[in-house]
Amino acid sequence: MHKSRLAGFIIDCETEDLDGAARFWAAALGAPAKPRTDPAESAYVGLDMPADEPYVEIQKVAHASRVHIDIESDDIAAEVARLEALGAKKIDAIRGWVVMEAPTGQRFCIVPVVSAEFESRANSWE
Amino acid sequence: MHKSRLAGFIIDCETEDLDGAARFWAAALGAPAKPRTDPAESAYVGLDMPADEPYVEIQKVAHASRVHIDIESDDIAAEVARLEALGAKKIDAIRGWVVMEAPTGQRFCIVPVVSAEFESRANSWE
Repeated sequence: MHKSRLAGFIIDCETEDLDGAARFWAAALGAPAKPRTDPAESAYVGLDMPADEPYVEIQKVAHASRVHIDIESDDIAAEVARLEALGAKKIDAIRGWVVMEAPTGQRFCIVPVVSAEFESRANSWE
Repeated sequence: MHKSRLAGFIIDCETEDLDGAARFWAAALGAPAKPRTDPAESAYVGLDMPADEPYVEIQKVAHASRVHIDIESDDIAAEVARLEALGAKKIDAIRGWVVMEAPTGQRFCIVPVVSAEFESRANSWE
């Protein structure tokens, strides 16, 4: 048995100006940008959303701008297999996470457990 | 003064099979699809997410599949003006909502207040 849960949304921005992108989205959504732990290296800026809501992060990307879903799981291989059985395709594996594509075309990611609500809110799969 | 808040995420699917798209995403996210009130007319299927989280809906669309953000507001015109001042562009007005494009390229929508958490969680703008 493993578990998974909709963890958050990543706002992928095709930009050289990650801080500017984060400023726009922080102001638009009324959620302050969190300080980056490693500004020189990180491609992500988190927004300070209510703790019990899915996370929202701004990511600097080289592909076209979009929004993608993150699913967190305590067993990434099992979750990828479950989603493949539903019709999704594995696209790539990047460090600790896996990029998949839905039958409806959207890319999404399977990531390790990150949210405090995982144990209480995740779905269990046989 | 008006208020706004990140209300939810719409999974736009370029498909003729809205129910099939909803079945995939319901299974992927572990959130049952809600019955459609008007299956012949509606282009949306809601997923039954925890009540205090942003809503997630599957929409049948004619454009390429993507995911878009809905911002709810008690004054749509004022919210559109606020976002234009931040650099977003108004793209279209469809019935009661407005489609905008972020400076980073993503389309998103400004919609009337829909969530029970609006009064307690919305941001106030002067």
